[in-house]
Amino acid sequence: MEKYEKIPKGFKFYGTHVGIKKKRKDFGLIVADELCHAAAVFTKNTFCGECIPIGKENVKDGKLQAVVVTSGIANVATGKTGRANEYKIMEKLAEKLTIDQENILPSSTGVIGPQLPIKRIEEFLTQEVLELEQNYENFAHAILTTDQRIKVHSLKVGDATILGIVKGSGMIEPNMATMLAYILTDAKVDKEVIYPMLKAAADQSFNTISIDSDTSTSDTVAFLASGHYDVEQTALQAGLNQISKELALAVVKDAEGATKTMFVTVKNAQSQEQAKNAGKSIINSPLVKTALFGNDPNWGRIAMALGKTEGLLFDQNKVEIYYGKYPIFSNNKEEQQNSNNITTYIEQNDEIYLTIDLHQGTESFQVIGCDLSYDYVKINSDYLT
Amino acid sequence: MEKYEKIPKGFKFYGTHVGIKKKRKDFGLIVADELCHAAAVFTKNTFCGECIPIGKENVKDGKLQAVVVTSGIANVATGKTGRANEYKIMEKLAEKLTIDQENILPSSTGVIGPQLPIKRIEEFLTQEVLELEQNYENFAHAILTTDQRIKVHSLKVGDATILGIVKGSGMIEPNMATMLAYILTDAKVDKEVIYPMLKAAADQSFNTISIDSDTSTSDTVAFLASGHYDVEQTALQAGLNQISKELALAVVKDAEGATKTMFVTVKNAQSQEQAKNAGKSIINSPLVKTALFGNDPNWGRIAMALGKTEGLLFDQNKVEIYYGKYPIFSNNKEEQQNSNNITTYIEQNDEIYLTIDLHQGTESFQVIGCDLSYDYVKINSDYLT
Repeated sequence: MEKYEKIPKGFKFYGTHVGIKKKRKDFGLIVADELCHAAAVFTKNTFCGECIPIGKENVKDGKLQAVVVTSGIANVATGKTGRANEYKIMEKLAEKLTIDQENILPSSTGVIGPQLPIKRIEEFLTQEVLELEQNYENFAHAILTTDQRIKVHSLKVGDATILGIVKGSGMIEPNMATMLAYILTDAKVDKEVIYPMLKAAADQSFNTISIDSDTSTSDTVAFLASGHYDVEQTALQAGLNQISKELALAVVKDAEGATKTMFVTVKNAQSQEQAKNAGKSIINSPLVKTALFGNDPNWGRIAMALGKTEGLLFDQNKVEIYYGKYPIFSNNKEEQQNSNNITTYIEQNDEIYLTIDLHQGTESFQVIGCDLSYDYVKINSDYLT
Repeated sequence: MEKYEKIPKGFKFYGTHVGIKKKRKDFGLIVADELCHAAAVFTKNTFCGECIPIGKENVKDGKLQAVVVTSGIANVATGKTGRANEYKIMEKLAEKLTIDQENILPSSTGVIGPQLPIKRIEEFLTQEVLELEQNYENFAHAILTTDQRIKVHSLKVGDATILGIVKGSGMIEPNMATMLAYILTDAKVDKEVIYPMLKAAADQSFNTISIDSDTSTSDTVAFLASGHYDVEQTALQAGLNQISKELALAVVKDAEGATKTMFVTVKNAQSQEQAKNAGKSIINSPLVKTALFGNDPNWGRIAMALGKTEGLLFDQNKVEIYYGKYPIFSNNKEEQQNSNNITTYIEQNDEIYLTIDLHQGTESFQVIGCDLSYDYVKINSDYLT
């Protein structure tokens, strides 16, 4: 696929260094030629960043024309000054791009607490010409914190294109990772269905991953449709779901210090929610995560994590635990004959598939996590070095 | 205090090596001269050990005469064979000690999955004379896994003594830590009040600590009263509370790989439960824990962890965050003038006190956690080395 074929019609990009970070790009824009139908989902963290309430307000009418991202400072816990700074940026931008301020979605990611260097940003926006580009690369770089790489996926649905750009995980400074994802399409999407479409896709993708169980204060996933092509809605939803899953997986693959990815499917639960809760309990268990890092086929920790799931009751006699295709626990006893195969399976694969069969219903859910390594501790404790 | 003054009247102890572990003591007994009033609280993990349902059944009538502990193998996820093995041990013991099997509380801690070496244990119990001792030291050693040290506290309430022995945290093999605590007194305690007394003490002590958010499959706290002395109930409850707090703190202090202890108090919440949930969210956050390990005054992560507390709503403008006596966040902004003092405070202390004032009610709760270090990852991922 040619590079420019990946980009849906009607969007331009921008990414540069304005001086929030020391050297790397820290200011990014997505600008649509016309007003788009749009939707966004946001962090549930009560201590949310100043961008979050502004973004919620601005996307409420189902319309957006631009996204602005600052990286390096999260603009969280910054009070009235932080809120005012965000409005100053949006005001300057609206003027410069001749679009309505109410159609801009702001995002910010980085350290919690400090104020943005607002004077520097305002000077930049006053003095510089913003040369928007066809290519998303500078934008994709401008939104990173300690991500190892830019994370971009695209696909075609009929004539239309869906492009997704995400950042997540990694630190250059001591703060939690923020997940920001922007999904663009030139398909036509009705204002009434764009939010439910995004919500459905996010629930099966971004909401199924966990790197360290810590919910960022700034998470945002936005979906903008420029409306150039008519596409069958089911096909578009399928494409949106796939891009969302690819982006979510890209975040876990770039997780801080991680060496392995684990896919945990809980089968035959009473509800999807029950299956998801059980899966999350497993991928968030420090003991399951450290065992995975050590290539240790320690299924007892999986049993423990399953058992501590809030509100989950089950019959130990019915539970089965698999590594890949190998059962390690069934009929309430260890399947010792599979131990060697499982050890080899874990040692030789970076993607580990675990299946828990509860045998108490018909619903399944898969969640995705990673291991807990020395490097996770290093990245998140090395403040002064 | 003389060593034997620490031991309540009417109890004897035993601890030896029977061959579950390679060399270290792995079999312990507490035996009362007479039937005791007793209560116990157990793990809420659904995937619980085979000892747990037996213990629940046996303590249901409020009476116990002995405790037997095997260490090195947890006897969890071992099915019918595991259950039968536990009964075999208890049967032999009942015969040997001429006490009713129904008055024995069994506990087991260690690796999940394998069966106990029941033949070896039965042979031992058949052949050896169990010479019970006045001193608890061999028992306290016999219940350890990778604990760094035995953890014992005692105090006097009037004429009576309360003695508590706990194990918790540490690994010799790849499995989660179990917390086992035994609290003995020679005070008289009515059968009707012994469980509520223990429950009240446990809720304010053992249930306030977290090392790694993973709930063991075998946790047990038992309280036995041999009934030699009359003591005022309020004084006894106060003593029981104090011993429970000391034992719980001793477990956190011996946490796997930990270098610091954090005491998190959430003040002026709407309920104790709300304050506790918020505190737990903070002490269980990997990002708060790694920051503590790195001596990093990263209060933004505390704000993040507070904000992600399930079901907790608050007004950022009212929240205050303190390190020791220094506020770092209030009136929705950073108190930058305190940054240097706080850095010094964290660097120079092993016990870090955090206070979160929600300003939305009158209830407070303190929880106790620890940092997340390289050694935690090492201890829990080093399987084959």
